[in-house]
Amino acid sequence: MKISSIAFQEMAQRERACFINCLSGFKSANLVGTYSQKWDVTNLSVISSCFHLGADPALMGLIIRPHSTDRHTLEYILETGEYTINHVNQAIMHKAHQTSARYPREQSEFEQTGLTPHFEAGHRAPFVQESSIRLGLKLREHLPLKINQTELIIGELTMVFAPLECLSKDGSLHIEKAGSLCVSGLDRYHQTKQLARLSYAKPDRELEDIEDQF
Amino acid sequence: MKISSIAFQEMAQRERACFINCLSGFKSANLVGTYSQKWDVTNLSVISSCFHLGADPALMGLIIRPHSTDRHTLEYILETGEYTINHVNQAIMHKAHQTSARYPREQSEFEQTGLTPHFEAGHRAPFVQESSIRLGLKLREHLPLKINQTELIIGELTMVFAPLECLSKDGSLHIEKAGSLCVSGLDRYHQTKQLARLSYAKPDRELEDIEDQF
Repeated sequence: MKISSIAFQEMAQRERACFINCLSGFKSANLVGTYSQKWDVTNLSVISSCFHLGADPALMGLIIRPHSTDRHTLEYILETGEYTINHVNQAIMHKAHQTSARYPREQSEFEQTGLTPHFEAGHRAPFVQESSIRLGLKLREHLPLKINQTELIIGELTMVFAPLECLSKDGSLHIEKAGSLCVSGLDRYHQTKQLARLSYAKPDRELEDIEDQF
Repeated sequence: MKISSIAFQEMAQRERACFINCLSGFKSANLVGTYSQKWDVTNLSVISSCFHLGADPALMGLIIRPHSTDRHTLEYILETGEYTINHVNQAIMHKAHQTSARYPREQSEFEQTGLTPHFEAGHRAPFVQESSIRLGLKLREHLPLKINQTELIIGELTMVFAPLECLSKDGSLHIEKAGSLCVSGLDRYHQTKQLARLSYAKPDRELEDIEDQF
């Protein structure tokens, strides 16, 4: 393939947004579940900006754009301090994408898309029953990023639900085996095929493939 | 699949790190290229923490852990204010992973792994010639995150190089067609298979599959 310079600075706004959103690479595909006590409503929002921030404490970051359809998500996370993150799989891909429509506050995306809220003792935000990997988080930090008016939400994991058959003996979770998908750009959903699991790299030593033991 | 609660709080440190790293979902697989004028060396580091932050200005975030093997990367980004991000593909997967070994400063990961530095006029940091999607960035913000001593690096895109045959008419870049991979956890590399490209979601309207036009 011939590699060319692409003058994104000259693209129209919508085209540019499509383009730039693809450049960081593949992204996680998650549904963020929230609950508002004030309005007594649940909210569900597909999000591709969730990222790993640290293992101890177990932290995750989430970027929320200003004026986006995620505005209820941000509002309810700040109100209750709790939210869930649920992996998207192929069976719920269309429903997950549909949560990005701009529903009014009183219409829960759970009802509108046909996904099932699932509650766990000790956590007020709803999990997604159709999701195989479900995380409960509590808000730890809210950092507005002045550079472009996005909001960085940092949460700490309090609960994890996953299929035990996907948990390797060394602690690694085989999320492909659990059916999790990834996203690229604004609207592409992809399944994955693992090519290799590679050993811890050291200078002057050949990498080896790691065989999973479940 | 039966979904179980997993008591990650009771895992040993290494097992827990393996586990928590898998939970955010699939991650981008990139090589970060840097150059130090002070030491006159290049550096290359595989990184799965690169994420989209905004389209206008075109911003990307990068999380660097303290005391990680990426320490030269952070040092040189702060010194020169410039770096590159290069997508990992299957042909360079092993070499990319090998850059995570702890090489001394004077041994460039380019030489040690056999990847080829490629320079573009107007940018001091090296690109990876074997990569199909290559981005040039300049440092815009450096935010140490007090919560866990990681560092958030925010960069603005100044240059993009990609195969024109992967650029859709609406601006979207088909990164799967370009051969880009994704990562899960600390050491799993995956290729992708696109399931669908879905239309912009609106309430009370059915989603449609978008056909790409190249």
